[in-house]
Amino acid sequence: MKEKKDQNAKKKLEEFGGEILKEIESGKSPKFTTLSRSRSNIHYDEKKGVLSLGKNSEERSFVNVGQAKRFMQTVAIASKCYKFINEDLHTSIRGLFYQLKYSLGEDVDENIFNEQAESNPLIEDLEVSLGVKREDLNLNANRKGVLAGNMRIVDNFGGERQVIDASKQGRSGWNIPSDVDNDIEFVDVKAKFVLVVEKDAIWQRLNEDGFWKKENCILISPQGQAARGTRRLIRKLADMGLPVYVFNDCDAWGWYIYWTIKTGSINLAYMGPEIATPEARFLGVTMEDIERYDFLKKMVMKASEVDIKRAQDMLQYSWINKHKAWVEELNKVIKTKTKLEQDTLQGPRLTFVGQYIKEKIAAKRFLP
Amino acid sequence: MKEKKDQNAKKKLEEFGGEILKEIESGKSPKFTTLSRSRSNIHYDEKKGVLSLGKNSEERSFVNVGQAKRFMQTVAIASKCYKFINEDLHTSIRGLFYQLKYSLGEDVDENIFNEQAESNPLIEDLEVSLGVKREDLNLNANRKGVLAGNMRIVDNFGGERQVIDASKQGRSGWNIPSDVDNDIEFVDVKAKFVLVVEKDAIWQRLNEDGFWKKENCILISPQGQAARGTRRLIRKLADMGLPVYVFNDCDAWGWYIYWTIKTGSINLAYMGPEIATPEARFLGVTMEDIERYDFLKKMVMKASEVDIKRAQDMLQYSWINKHKAWVEELNKVIKTKTKLEQDTLQGPRLTFVGQYIKEKIAAKRFLP
Repeated sequence: MKEKKDQNAKKKLEEFGGEILKEIESGKSPKFTTLSRSRSNIHYDEKKGVLSLGKNSEERSFVNVGQAKRFMQTVAIASKCYKFINEDLHTSIRGLFYQLKYSLGEDVDENIFNEQAESNPLIEDLEVSLGVKREDLNLNANRKGVLAGNMRIVDNFGGERQVIDASKQGRSGWNIPSDVDNDIEFVDVKAKFVLVVEKDAIWQRLNEDGFWKKENCILISPQGQAARGTRRLIRKLADMGLPVYVFNDCDAWGWYIYWTIKTGSINLAYMGPEIATPEARFLGVTMEDIERYDFLKKMVMKASEVDIKRAQDMLQYSWINKHKAWVEELNKVIKTKTKLEQDTLQGPRLTFVGQYIKEKIAAKRFLP
Repeated sequence: MKEKKDQNAKKKLEEFGGEILKEIESGKSPKFTTLSRSRSNIHYDEKKGVLSLGKNSEERSFVNVGQAKRFMQTVAIASKCYKFINEDLHTSIRGLFYQLKYSLGEDVDENIFNEQAESNPLIEDLEVSLGVKREDLNLNANRKGVLAGNMRIVDNFGGERQVIDASKQGRSGWNIPSDVDNDIEFVDVKAKFVLVVEKDAIWQRLNEDGFWKKENCILISPQGQAARGTRRLIRKLADMGLPVYVFNDCDAWGWYIYWTIKTGSINLAYMGPEIATPEARFLGVTMEDIERYDFLKKMVMKASEVDIKRAQDMLQYSWINKHKAWVEELNKVIKTKTKLEQDTLQGPRLTFVGQYIKEKIAAKRFLP
């Protein structure tokens, strides 16, 4: 972790520009290489336990009718990011888009960035080509996610150094930002494990019970699908040796959120291990819970077609169907055509959610 | 503001139960009265400047074939909320739903709460009938919204009193909770005005610039449409005498977010002035801006059918078309078929957003 911004991205951008300049000066066509992010180049890395890119590389060249425009756009993006880093200012991809539109829009015949959809893949090209994250290029991604627990955040931001105590954030919790790598440090992490809960409402429930205090854990909610910053932070906490348990709904969306945290996702396969936590375990809720907690029988809901379809798809993935426990679990959903929400655990009494989690962790009853 | 929870809701629930008991004991059919929330009973209150309910009341009676089930459900909800208040625990509407399903599901022939859609309107019935908010009944609504500025939050939560300094939250900001009325207090509010910005990305931009520090304002983003807690907090800050400026996109969604903050919304008309801030002003972005900031000419986007339709609809509302400036603004959108995003202001340079806001406030160039 770095309390000071990593200068790596700046150096990489300088090299990137230097190479292009050298090629132009020596009369060659400027070009750079990136990895293919097409589906055929995305695979599950058995050893690392994450989705990542294969070795198929692609060349982006200026002297190529089909690529000239994209090449120029990528160089323009690199130039803007270099400026942002030097200014020590951040923006969103939308902000970058409008800067490009502003500075390039009138110098060329047509607006080269009419649609943001055009700039997104080029940013990914840059990330992959340089081997840095967009956050390192001072581009914020959408943020979402909240945290409470025995740890402190040292946030060097806007010229000030703030120390935020994540155990003193009351009902609100600490907002997980987009960038958890630069000018920020996580210190005094005294917890024993990380508990990730899908829904903010359940996070609030557990926070009110002081669950993270009593059980000494870091309590995180991605508030639905986990944003880049939240996934990255979970990875960093796992790097500190903390076990990671994920507590989600037993349905298509809950499983998807879990596997995204664990193995990464197709979209972000290019970030590989940096954004995945293969050590994560699925704590619940599960179909198996119904056999142990009798009241859940009347809490099940009818599974939707999406849930069934998702369960069937998941059974095809090698990294899921190699786990017998997951095969059994998903087959139960397909067979009974039912699903279960994590909120159901509030049925007997509001504080039962915490008791359930304690019992499951103590008995090591989780899915791989 | 109350650092201790208001006991009003508890008293109201006791009276509610007491009345029903009295009626049963005296051989009468138990009943209660609520206000109609149908469209015909929602009007714009000219004097208060908010959308609110009229006087059409509706009776909910137990001895009525069409109402017996709903009546029983409402009493069950009241009973659960009374329990939550006594336990000093909160939950979501989903949590309440599962508690009802748990305790009532097997005593009756059919599950009386199969769908959450059934319990939502009944909670509103209770809120209106008792004259309290669901937050006072220990039911959390979805939360969204972030804040930074020179103020402190005293949050009595889970048995601890936390003092959170909203000027020391780094890149993250303070998360605005669902309940900003009970066991929570806002103190040392030293700002001169409130600035509400639609998008979280723009909030982050201004936060990084230290805009709220330099201009001494409370910087809020509802992060899209404003949640109940955020709307209520804006109201409370306005009650402290702070002017409220709203900075949104110039499109259907941006206008909608503004008018919801200002006059309240159809859905929450029953909360009337408690959740509306008629004093709010629309700072931008506007079609008029294009005439003053030349670069915006090339930043406009094609308005969608939704935008045009929304502009036309808004021109029909008496509380909007009474303002000449709004009529002109909306007509410009309809005529030019263009719209404008707040992000465009990052075009010339990232820090231009703040300069624009300063200029507009200084010149008092905002819409009513």
